[in-house]
Amino acid sequence: MIIDCHGHYTTAPAALQEFRDASLARLKDPALPVPAEPQISDDEIRATIEGNQLRVVRERGHDMTIFSPRASAMGHHVDDPATAVTWARVCNDLIYRVTTLFPDYYAGAAQLPQVAGEPLDSSVAELERAVTELGFVGCNLNPDPAGGFWSSPPLTDEYWFPLYEKMTELDVPAMIHVSTSCNPAVHTLGAHYLNADTTTFMQLVQGSLFERFPTLRFVIPHGGGAVPYHWGRYQGIATREKFPPIGQNVMTNVWFDTCVYHQPGIDLLTGVISPDNILFASEMLGAVRGDNPDGGFSWDDTRRYVEAAKLTDSDRARIFETNARRVYPRLDARLKAQGR
Amino acid sequence: MIIDCHGHYTTAPAALQEFRDASLARLKDPALPVPAEPQISDDEIRATIEGNQLRVVRERGHDMTIFSPRASAMGHHVDDPATAVTWARVCNDLIYRVTTLFPDYYAGAAQLPQVAGEPLDSSVAELERAVTELGFVGCNLNPDPAGGFWSSPPLTDEYWFPLYEKMTELDVPAMIHVSTSCNPAVHTLGAHYLNADTTTFMQLVQGSLFERFPTLRFVIPHGGGAVPYHWGRYQGIATREKFPPIGQNVMTNVWFDTCVYHQPGIDLLTGVISPDNILFASEMLGAVRGDNPDGGFSWDDTRRYVEAAKLTDSDRARIFETNARRVYPRLDARLKAQGR
Repeated sequence: MIIDCHGHYTTAPAALQEFRDASLARLKDPALPVPAEPQISDDEIRATIEGNQLRVVRERGHDMTIFSPRASAMGHHVDDPATAVTWARVCNDLIYRVTTLFPDYYAGAAQLPQVAGEPLDSSVAELERAVTELGFVGCNLNPDPAGGFWSSPPLTDEYWFPLYEKMTELDVPAMIHVSTSCNPAVHTLGAHYLNADTTTFMQLVQGSLFERFPTLRFVIPHGGGAVPYHWGRYQGIATREKFPPIGQNVMTNVWFDTCVYHQPGIDLLTGVISPDNILFASEMLGAVRGDNPDGGFSWDDTRRYVEAAKLTDSDRARIFETNARRVYPRLDARLKAQGR
Repeated sequence: MIIDCHGHYTTAPAALQEFRDASLARLKDPALPVPAEPQISDDEIRATIEGNQLRVVRERGHDMTIFSPRASAMGHHVDDPATAVTWARVCNDLIYRVTTLFPDYYAGAAQLPQVAGEPLDSSVAELERAVTELGFVGCNLNPDPAGGFWSSPPLTDEYWFPLYEKMTELDVPAMIHVSTSCNPAVHTLGAHYLNADTTTFMQLVQGSLFERFPTLRFVIPHGGGAVPYHWGRYQGIATREKFPPIGQNVMTNVWFDTCVYHQPGIDLLTGVISPDNILFASEMLGAVRGDNPDGGFSWDDTRRYVEAAKLTDSDRARIFETNARRVYPRLDARLKAQGR
C-alpha cells in the first residue's frame, strides 16, 4: 500500500475562495454584509477531485492520501481570531466532505485557526472537533503564522504546549507547514516553505521538546528543507554547541516527507536519513506541477524516485506505508476498519 | 592549486571584540568615552592565524584562501551608520594585515558597513577603499542586514544597484552572506545562514538582475542552502510561474560553494550543479568544527569530499582553482604576479 501523507485541496471550487475574499473585504469594511458560507454541491467536489488529484492518484497507484486545505491559503497572518476560526472550520468541513465522498482515497488533516501572537485555544478546539467529529487523523501546524516574519516563539516554547497536550491526548501528529509569505523578500514556494522546514528542525535540535512530550510527533515536509543535504553540518553544530545527539533528541519524534522533486534529492534523503524517519508524500497537486522536459514525467511523481532509490523492499515498504500507519494511528485504524 | 573562497577570521585577537563591545556600549550610553581602536601586534595576528586557520590550511594542502571578517559579527542590525562604517573599516584593516603577513595564503574580501534601510553609499565607499587601497578581491553582501527579519528588498531591487555598479566597475564578486540572527526563532548557523542562501537564490530566479548587470557575480555559500537538494523543485517552479530558464537567467552569474559537510551532500552538489558553477570552500574555521566521530576527520574537511566525488580531473580542477580565478579576476592577477 502507498500512503501519501501530504496532499492539499488546491483545486477547491471557486466558491471557497469567493467566501474568503468576502470575509477579508468585510474585515476592511465592517459595513459590508456577513458573507454567506460557500454553497458547494457534492458534484462540484467530485469534479474538482476526480479531474485533478484523484486522476493522478489513480495514474500513479497511490492508495491513500492525507488531505488538508490549501496550505498557502491558510492565511494565519490575518490578525482577526474570529475570521481565522470561521475560515478553518469552513475549509476543514470541505475536506471532511472529500473524505466522505472518497473514503477509500482520502483521510483528513486539519487547518488550525492560528493567529500570530494569539493564544492557541481556538486551535485546540478546532483540532478536537476535526479529530473527534470529522474523523481527521492529523493537522498542519504553522510555526510562523506571521507569514515570513518569524515573530512567534520557537516550537519548543511553552506557548505551543496547549496544542501539544491536545495532540498527545488525541494521538495525532502535526505536519509543520507554513502558509503564504507576506514578505516580498521571501518567495512562498521557493523559499518560505523550505526555510520553515529548516528553521523548525533547528529549533528542535536546540531544545528538548520530546523529553516533555515523548509521544508528540512532527512531520517536516519538503524532504526536511535543507536539513538532509546539510546533515553533516547539523551533526557538527550539535556537537560544537553541546546539544544532545540529534538521533536521540529529535529523530525519535520527527519524520521527513519525500516531497523532493528529482532523483538525486530522493537518493540523498534515503541515503542519509533512516528509512524509519521518512514518509512518502507528493504534495500533489502542490508547489510544482508539469513535466520535467528531460524525463517526460511529472516533477512531483515522487513514487517514481522512491521506487528507483537504492532501498531494500522492507525499507521501501516502511516509507510507503508502515511508518505512516505508526505516525498516524488514527489512519491505521481507519484502514483496518476498511479491511486494509 | 586549491583556492578556498570562503574563510573567516573567526579567531581574531580579543582586542577586536573588546573594541566592538565598547562601541556598542557607547551607543547605549553616549556619556562613555569614544573607544580607542584596537591595538594588535603583528605577532598576535601571526599567532591567531598560524595556530588556527593556517595550521589547518597546511594540513589539508589548501594554497590560497579568500579571507573575510567573521560573518556572524558583522552586526548589520545595529542601526547606527557611523558605527557600521568604523566597524567595517577596523575589521577590513585587520584582514589586510593578515593578507600582508601571509600573502601566499590569504587574499581579502571586505565586510561592508550595511545598515538595514539605509542607503548603500558608505558600503560603496568601503568596497572601493578595500579593493583599491587594500587589494581585496571581493566582498560579503548581506541580503538581510536586519538579522533574521528580512526587512530589506530583494537583491533584484534597485536599492542595491549602487553597490552593483561599483562591483561591476571594480570587477569584484560578492559572496551573499548574512550575519548573526537576532530572531530567537531562527538559529544563526543552523537556519539563518542556509535560509539566506535559499531565499537569495529564489529572488534571483524571480528577477532578471543579470540582464541589467551582465558581469555581476554572486557566490552563494553553504552549498547554495537548500537549492541543489531541491533542484527539481526550482526547475518546476520556474516553469510553472513562467520565470526565465534558471540556467540562462541565474546560473550564468552565480556560483555555489562546497561548504557542505558530508560526502552525500557534496556528491549531490557535484552531481546536480554544473562543475562550472561550483567553487571550492571550507568556511574554515567556521560554523562546524571538530571531528566526525564516525570518520575520524573534521566535518569541514571539504577537500576530502571533493576529492572523493565522482568528477573528472578537469571538473575537479575547475572547482578547486580555475572557476575561482574567473570569478575573482583580482585574485587571479595576484596569483599571476606571484608566479602561480
